[in-house]
Amino acid sequence: MTVDPALLERRLDELYTIGAQPDGGAYRGLYDDAWAAAVERVERWLKNAGLKTRRDAVGNLWGRVDGTDKGKSIVTGSHIDTVRHGGRLDGALGIVAGLTAVESLLATKGRPRRPLEVVAICEEEGSRFATNFWGSRAIVGEIETAADDMSQAMRERGLDPARIAAAARDDIDAFVELHIEQGVVLESTNVPIAVVSTIVGTAHLEVAVTGRPDHAGTTPMELRRDALAGAAAMIQAVESIARSLGKPAVATVGRIRAEPDQINVIPGRVVFTIDLRHSDLGARRALEERIRSLCATTASERKLGIETRVLQERPPVPMHREVRTLLARAAKDSGIDATEMVSGAGHDAQILAARCRVGMLFVPSIGGRSHCPEEATSPRHLELGTRVLARALEMLAY
Amino acid sequence: MTVDPALLERRLDELYTIGAQPDGGAYRGLYDDAWAAAVERVERWLKNAGLKTRRDAVGNLWGRVDGTDKGKSIVTGSHIDTVRHGGRLDGALGIVAGLTAVESLLATKGRPRRPLEVVAICEEEGSRFATNFWGSRAIVGEIETAADDMSQAMRERGLDPARIAAAARDDIDAFVELHIEQGVVLESTNVPIAVVSTIVGTAHLEVAVTGRPDHAGTTPMELRRDALAGAAAMIQAVESIARSLGKPAVATVGRIRAEPDQINVIPGRVVFTIDLRHSDLGARRALEERIRSLCATTASERKLGIETRVLQERPPVPMHREVRTLLARAAKDSGIDATEMVSGAGHDAQILAARCRVGMLFVPSIGGRSHCPEEATSPRHLELGTRVLARALEMLAY
Repeated sequence: MTVDPALLERRLDELYTIGAQPDGGAYRGLYDDAWAAAVERVERWLKNAGLKTRRDAVGNLWGRVDGTDKGKSIVTGSHIDTVRHGGRLDGALGIVAGLTAVESLLATKGRPRRPLEVVAICEEEGSRFATNFWGSRAIVGEIETAADDMSQAMRERGLDPARIAAAARDDIDAFVELHIEQGVVLESTNVPIAVVSTIVGTAHLEVAVTGRPDHAGTTPMELRRDALAGAAAMIQAVESIARSLGKPAVATVGRIRAEPDQINVIPGRVVFTIDLRHSDLGARRALEERIRSLCATTASERKLGIETRVLQERPPVPMHREVRTLLARAAKDSGIDATEMVSGAGHDAQILAARCRVGMLFVPSIGGRSHCPEEATSPRHLELGTRVLARALEMLAY
Repeated sequence: MTVDPALLERRLDELYTIGAQPDGGAYRGLYDDAWAAAVERVERWLKNAGLKTRRDAVGNLWGRVDGTDKGKSIVTGSHIDTVRHGGRLDGALGIVAGLTAVESLLATKGRPRRPLEVVAICEEEGSRFATNFWGSRAIVGEIETAADDMSQAMRERGLDPARIAAAARDDIDAFVELHIEQGVVLESTNVPIAVVSTIVGTAHLEVAVTGRPDHAGTTPMELRRDALAGAAAMIQAVESIARSLGKPAVATVGRIRAEPDQINVIPGRVVFTIDLRHSDLGARRALEERIRSLCATTASERKLGIETRVLQERPPVPMHREVRTLLARAAKDSGIDATEMVSGAGHDAQILAARCRVGMLFVPSIGGRSHCPEEATSPRHLELGTRVLARALEMLAY
């Protein structure tokens, strides 16, 4: 099985121009104009490749070739939306590679035994509305209604928010996605392709620390109840606990806000977020427990109030054992020993796992950069990833 | 010398209603409507007390009684503006106590030997425009022009920005101000009145820490360049260095901002401020040096960039030795052994010190609260402070 690397690059370039931002990167937000133009472009490609296309009730775009036998579908693809100032590959690669792989299979192997589909999932990033995994959650039947702003945006694209439930499917056998790693593990170990073992579980916490907003000049150090000094100790603890637990535990404080936010007033209140991830649910909970306990101790030592709430919590999702084995074999058939690795980022596969067998392939990210204009993967890794994907789809659908 | 405590309270109450905010506290911003109403109210009080009033080129309000001899003036007073959601006493007390003290002196002692003046300084807090000590800086001839927004606001109050320099005076002998402590030192040591020895020197720094904004899920802990984790270590150091130097060193991180400020992205840049104070210039500089050095070490250990700039720097200002002695004697004459203390907050006296002898009296702040609606001092301390002030003015002007 061969794929044309120049065709891959050309399609990725084309998609990257849709939603290009004047100050770098591209932005295709769910249901916005760039998003609609990108869906249209992909639909044209799918049709040209000989697939029947349709858009479901939330705007996921499906391209299908029926199998000679009946049975559930083999699906590949990824999401078509981007973060703001997003890069050229996140999501786009899975769609372009899926389409290119299926096109090659049809050209060289003819009609598959099983129905074979390419999907451009409408949304995964959560960049425009207060949602994420919108497309895949609709596919597994997790969504019934949309918020007002989203409903309005759906109507502007000719989608009826009352029909969202119609997007649900129970006729998918397997979903396989090629994605960039978005980290430096493959690059730094010099491995060109990985099979994902598990997508980490994530908890998002919000911590509010309350002290007393006193005068920065007239309040001696020992009489302060400084919410920011306390929060700084907690942020230090978040980092050192994650380090001490070892890989693949990660913990990140991404947002922080101090009040009253004045140069000469001791902060009386600080709110920050913690993003916690681990591939093992027990270990992720242990990480959260240790962090909560250390923050509580710090608060109590410093006579600060503390309130922690869970903003979001998703368990780790193991990829399907059979699909993992098959992906490793597909790599082997392409002459590569794939490594197995945990995905630290969330992906549609973790949602679709509720209704079908799922698996993912990662190719290296140069410098680990992602969600930015610098996002890049070498052409030979893109070609290799697409070739392994094609081989896997062949094994599943032919 | 006696003062009527009920009159003091009534005047403070009256002033506090001017600019009262629906959600608590009062706000009188330079040249705004509440500010103008307060100046008018104080002018009426001054006139009723028999003082000749005038407003200078920046809107400082002066009430004067000529002395039997010629010579430079003895002045008391404070600022009439407030912070947002300010309290009942900061600034207001110095004006009301000064007026009430002079009124008592005129009633019991008659006309002074020296010119005696009460001033309501137009601005000290820096709450409305990007300025502070506006009124006192104009008095010492430090200001020549105003920014556009301030010029516009001045014109709306009938003041000509081209005439600012005319507010300068060189005929003041001594300025004495009664103020609340704004901290808990007097309350916790159970001392009812203090003579200020020195107003601390303040440096305001802005520190920008630069790391790399990576994905919170896909970037292992050991490969991060987390600007916020680094800033947290620096904030911890700021606190512990100030503590280790001992009183009266204080250091405060009041503002912090992380970018890109997303829950699932490692902060790539963090900017925070440091407010540093000490009564000794060498010690303040040493504090700054140690903090800068530790922040630089932290940045280098964590492969972070760091840039520090000085936003503002004011040296410590000792109060005039003769005035300090005189204030202590005035307290003694009122039956109290005053303590001496450093002022951690800035005051107009530190500016006026460039042109005249200055001195300050502090009365206790309940719970150390200030710049907030909870700002309070017991009526007996207000009365005592006003009585000591009156005695000091008597010693200076009669």
